[in-house]
Amino acid sequence: MRPSKRAADAMRSVSFERGVAKHAEGSCLVRFGDTHVLCTASLEEKPPAWLRGSGKGWVTAEYGMLPRSTGDRMRREAATGKQSGRTQEIQRLIGRSLRSVVDLVHLGEKQITIDCDVLQADGGTRTASVTGGWIALYECVQWMKARDMVGPKVIRDHVAAISVGMYRGKPVLDLDYAEDSEAETDANFVMTGSGGIVEIQGTAEGKPFDEAELTAMLGLAKAGIGQLVELQKQTLA
Amino acid sequence: MRPSKRAADAMRSVSFERGVAKHAEGSCLVRFGDTHVLCTASLEEKPPAWLRGSGKGWVTAEYGMLPRSTGDRMRREAATGKQSGRTQEIQRLIGRSLRSVVDLVHLGEKQITIDCDVLQADGGTRTASVTGGWIALYECVQWMKARDMVGPKVIRDHVAAISVGMYRGKPVLDLDYAEDSEAETDANFVMTGSGGIVEIQGTAEGKPFDEAELTAMLGLAKAGIGQLVELQKQTLA
Amino acid sequence: MRPSKRAADAMRSVSFERGVAKHAEGSCLVRFGDTHVLCTASLEEKPPAWLRGSGKGWVTAEYGMLPRSTGDRMRREAATGKQSGRTQEIQRLIGRSLRSVVDLVHLGEKQITIDCDVLQADGGTRTASVTGGWIALYECVQWMKARDMVGPKVIRDHVAAISVGMYRGKPVLDLDYAEDSEAETDANFVMTGSGGIVEIQGTAEGKPFDEAELTAMLGLAKAGIGQLVELQKQTLA
Amino acid sequence: MRPSKRAADAMRSVSFERGVAKHAEGSCLVRFGDTHVLCTASLEEKPPAWLRGSGKGWVTAEYGMLPRSTGDRMRREAATGKQSGRTQEIQRLIGRSLRSVVDLVHLGEKQITIDCDVLQADGGTRTASVTGGWIALYECVQWMKARDMVGPKVIRDHVAAISVGMYRGKPVLDLDYAEDSEAETDANFVMTGSGGIVEIQGTAEGKPFDEAELTAMLGLAKAGIGQLVELQKQTLA
Amino acid sequence: MRPSKRAADAMRSVSFERGVAKHAEGSCLVRFGDTHVLCTASLEEKPPAWLRGSGKGWVTAEYGMLPRSTGDRMRREAATGKQSGRTQEIQRLIGRSLRSVVDLVHLGEKQITIDCDVLQADGGTRTASVTGGWIALYECVQWMKARDMVGPKVIRDHVAAISVGMYRGKPVLDLDYAEDSEAETDANFVMTGSGGIVEIQGTAEGKPFDEAELTAMLGLAKAGIGQLVELQKQTLA
Amino acid sequence: MRPSKRAADAMRSVSFERGVAKHAEGSCLVRFGDTHVLCTASLEEKPPAWLRGSGKGWVTAEYGMLPRSTGDRMRREAATGKQSGRTQEIQRLIGRSLRSVVDLVHLGEKQITIDCDVLQADGGTRTASVTGGWIALYECVQWMKARDMVGPKVIRDHVAAISVGMYRGKPVLDLDYAEDSEAETDANFVMTGSGGIVEIQGTAEGKPFDEAELTAMLGLAKAGIGQLVELQKQTLA
Repeated sequence: MRPSKRAADAMRSVSFERGVAKHAEGSCLVRFGDTHVLCTASLEEKPPAWLRGSGKGWVTAEYGMLPRSTGDRMRREAATGKQSGRTQEIQRLIGRSLRSVVDLVHLGEKQITIDCDVLQADGGTRTASVTGGWIALYECVQWMKARDMVGPKVIRDHVAAISVGMYRGKPVLDLDYAEDSEAETDANFVMTGSGGIVEIQGTAEGKPFDEAELTAMLGLAKAGIGQLVELQKQTLA
Repeated sequence: MRPSKRAADAMRSVSFERGVAKHAEGSCLVRFGDTHVLCTASLEEKPPAWLRGSGKGWVTAEYGMLPRSTGDRMRREAATGKQSGRTQEIQRLIGRSLRSVVDLVHLGEKQITIDCDVLQADGGTRTASVTGGWIALYECVQWMKARDMVGPKVIRDHVAAISVGMYRGKPVLDLDYAEDSEAETDANFVMTGSGGIVEIQGTAEGKPFDEAELTAMLGLAKAGIGQLVELQKQTLA
Repeated sequence: MRPSKRAADAMRSVSFERGVAKHAEGSCLVRFGDTHVLCTASLEEKPPAWLRGSGKGWVTAEYGMLPRSTGDRMRREAATGKQSGRTQEIQRLIGRSLRSVVDLVHLGEKQITIDCDVLQADGGTRTASVTGGWIALYECVQWMKARDMVGPKVIRDHVAAISVGMYRGKPVLDLDYAEDSEAETDANFVMTGSGGIVEIQGTAEGKPFDEAELTAMLGLAKAGIGQLVELQKQTLA
Repeated sequence: MRPSKRAADAMRSVSFERGVAKHAEGSCLVRFGDTHVLCTASLEEKPPAWLRGSGKGWVTAEYGMLPRSTGDRMRREAATGKQSGRTQEIQRLIGRSLRSVVDLVHLGEKQITIDCDVLQADGGTRTASVTGGWIALYECVQWMKARDMVGPKVIRDHVAAISVGMYRGKPVLDLDYAEDSEAETDANFVMTGSGGIVEIQGTAEGKPFDEAELTAMLGLAKAGIGQLVELQKQTLA
Repeated sequence: MRPSKRAADAMRSVSFERGVAKHAEGSCLVRFGDTHVLCTASLEEKPPAWLRGSGKGWVTAEYGMLPRSTGDRMRREAATGKQSGRTQEIQRLIGRSLRSVVDLVHLGEKQITIDCDVLQADGGTRTASVTGGWIALYECVQWMKARDMVGPKVIRDHVAAISVGMYRGKPVLDLDYAEDSEAETDANFVMTGSGGIVEIQGTAEGKPFDEAELTAMLGLAKAGIGQLVELQKQTLA
Repeated sequence: MRPSKRAADAMRSVSFERGVAKHAEGSCLVRFGDTHVLCTASLEEKPPAWLRGSGKGWVTAEYGMLPRSTGDRMRREAATGKQSGRTQEIQRLIGRSLRSVVDLVHLGEKQITIDCDVLQADGGTRTASVTGGWIALYECVQWMKARDMVGPKVIRDHVAAISVGMYRGKPVLDLDYAEDSEAETDANFVMTGSGGIVEIQGTAEGKPFDEAELTAMLGLAKAGIGQLVELQKQTLA
């Protein structure tokens, strides 16, 4: 039995609220249960220095948590003077995941930055960020199309992410904070709309896992990501 | 005529949404028109080191802006590695303003941190932060009272803040970003519920101002802060 | 009765020593009683990057305190690795104040940096910095005129600053450290030679102040700044 | 055909040189082909602050690359003033991997730091670090046993790591730099001596991968890690 | 012929102005020609952490240059966010030199910090700092004696420093900036009142030097330091 | 009697292992007894910004110690966020020493960076770095000659360095860590192959030294450096 009372394969209630940021070229407030992340897309007319003249653009991501998004207040990274290893690891993951479905040549010499700021955290902030970040990215590309800045094929597919874990010996989908703290294994999967795997990160916090468990977790993730992609489609419809 | 079409003495639409942060001891999402600030209060059981053994507590504030809260994306201060002078100036102002109405002896050896994070900016983020921060602080003290952690007289009064300015030669209330960018003088007033002045910061960006203009701006601010305090009262009722 | 035995409207003994820095284009050692600040002006042939091509120049300021300028030794900011919020707040104030009397178009695409380094502190270092900084700035512009680098109308007016406060319920002028530590309200005024107000910063450290007290403090400040401007004129004569 | 001419399931020549650091409690110079990493174990008599009084110890890792370990000289992180996100991500991985086979209660209130410094890099530095770091850790625990500082059951199992990838559509084992740069997918597996999976990190750099490819890569990794564990055993024999 | 017209063995005009810092336990404004350094001594009642319980005290030094002490304005190290290698090298030298004549056991568990801030630079700032720093240190110890905080034997000897160099093939004493920029060799000597050598730092900027030149430079330095010690004695008399 | 049992004028066993770094344009693993330093030379096709257009090149050095190169583990400077004063002092010394024998005009507009990373420390790391760094530099220039990037006269002479000290009243050569910790005076000499002195750094840690002792130390250093230069020649032969 999960602390959340959810069935092993049940996700939390997920919602995408579009167009929440007046100034941004794209935005989405994504909620996975009590995890709320504000994703914005910001367009820059030129790519990073190392891509100038290449004909290609770039998509990158930054991630942050508000100090009191968590149970105990965290020190503000701007005050600490640096981003933690965890923050950097997550923003690199979000960027890689989104780039996996973008045609950087069709984007052209521009840069889109996806900012994912966690307003409230209850586990799964990185997967919510990838999933909601894709909506913000999509909106931004729509914004560009409306201004004839890009052609039709910039975004090649959906991308979404979900966490799975081994909790008391059973594979479960979409762990909240209470479940994540006690899980034996915590894994994050990023997949495209057509089911390709973009990223797997699985860590045994306690007991190592075996191939059968990996397969079971992958199965749960696939189903969950299928639902997320469906929700993305409904949101854009 | 103001760009916002408002009368010289008209504030933007102001609202306070309470209890928006699941984990915080107090919280308020304050909106002054398109300026939206999420204020949370976090209680620590012990005061800063320099107050240990003094019998007194402390109230402090931190301030941040989400990278795309503004028209052009700003660099994330956590990535830059330091808080700008402007950020530090604002958070010192918020902290001083809130402490002016708190009895630190009655608070006892504890610390309350008010985080003010700007989700969307359109001028007046510091005045919205003071005004909404007071609600978060009040909620936090209520939370403490409900647990018998403090007595009744911790918060002595309301405190609220508003900007005024000289715009094309006329004093106007509560400048939005477009007005602020063109104003000859920009001033921020912080006052208590009983009308005492806690802080004045007035800067002539263009032409210096004179005593009569200062008096006119003070008059507008007084009226505006009176309305804000009234709204705070309705919110808590 | 003030600790300094001065009358409520009496400033400390103020002096300006010009030409104290062999290498600088302008310099002034300003003394407000035991507060001593070395102000130098440094000319750069090009403006900051964001003004290139605009036809305009810039005046900026930096501020620092020697570690043992104070009663207790302060940590050296160069060793700490960053400038405090207070330092940044003060240097922004000095820069804004000086720019308010400079015609940046007549200055042309150049930058003048005013460094204000406190050799000894006894309250009022920011007001001494503005007042002495203006002398250094003036000398620098004279230096430029002597080399036909600028025309006659770069500096439009004098600017000077003074602190006032409410001390035991009475408005008093030019607080020293002992008075400042106990004052209910501490305010700094920056005004031009022609009496325009450039900046007001007033903070109630204890009891809030009211409009009558603000008016009384403004009156003291006006008179004090009038004397400072007179002294600036005598110094340049 | 791989650039390295190796068969798809062939690792590079791997060697462990023990006892290479005069001062350290444990050390190993591990070579995976041209990738050379110096691993040292340093014992501290007390655990990190947050474990004091818990009866448990800690194992942590730090990672660095010499500036000219790579084809182009990299900037020294000590000169840059911070560790890159990649460095932090890797050292967190090494620490987690090693802790997965250590009984922290049996270790007692002590801390072992494994430093992995890359003398020469040719792909796979993180997997070499985990694999060689385990030898340094083992030596350190032997050193402690020889001094009766710990009992027999501190290290519960071997742990080793290997990279696999999809290269031109085929799964291949232990990618060198040239292969890694061109691979469609790059994955790192960490497993125990008894075959449990501790960590999977798989990233599609180009085309997403599918479940069959994941299974094939896992198979290669399992065989490779089996060989590495065998080599660890021979080294300690 | 030297640019300064001085004879090869002639120092610049040297003066020590004592008691220049109202707040410091000891102070000296030292001038070597146009090089002016403000030295202050600050007493702390406890030694650095690593000396607690040892019965010994510590003397340390910090060094800084005002931004416009030099011909071209230097960036303020507090703004840069770190002290340069040169700054750290110099302050380590000053500290070592002063400690060489202090009995740290007789000082007891206290720390004296000598701050040397260069108000104006024209070569030889480090030697002026050592020489003037000794006066500030001496005053501080007198201040302590007057309060029965230490016994009579804390300062065992004078210490002073001078630069010498090979300039156009000739050894010369006390180089100013113009000479230093062109010298083939630049050397700094620190010696005690009784003629013991505490520190030699000699660097060939151009052509290497030989033993005879080293001996000639040492001879000049000895004579120069003899004069400086005499001046220290007169200053204290 | 020295702790190392060596005669007063006996160096430790010294060796140079060339070509140890696959990627570098020059490299040398130098050993002075148990002090082991990996020196690499990295060529950049352009000089530092301040030399562009001058026709001259530059040689610079960076220095680091692996965390467990020492008896107690040192904090990693990349984690601390800055290089210590000692590190900067040493890398400046290495750079100056190597430049003293390089014709920067013949080098042309290029930069060579010598990285000296201490794998194991037992005293004398800076002198080993200079001496081994020269080999790496020489290899790099050979590499350039083989590609017709420079003419024959870039390196004008050998340069090598050795420490000497006063140990229990006697001058001794090449101190190891145990000797260095107890020596009254510690001095480092850098000399060219033709016997010119490039740098002297001598510090009395305890009792000051006199001219006779300086002369004795210089004699030892000369002989030692003669041997080192001989070894450099044999290594290149």
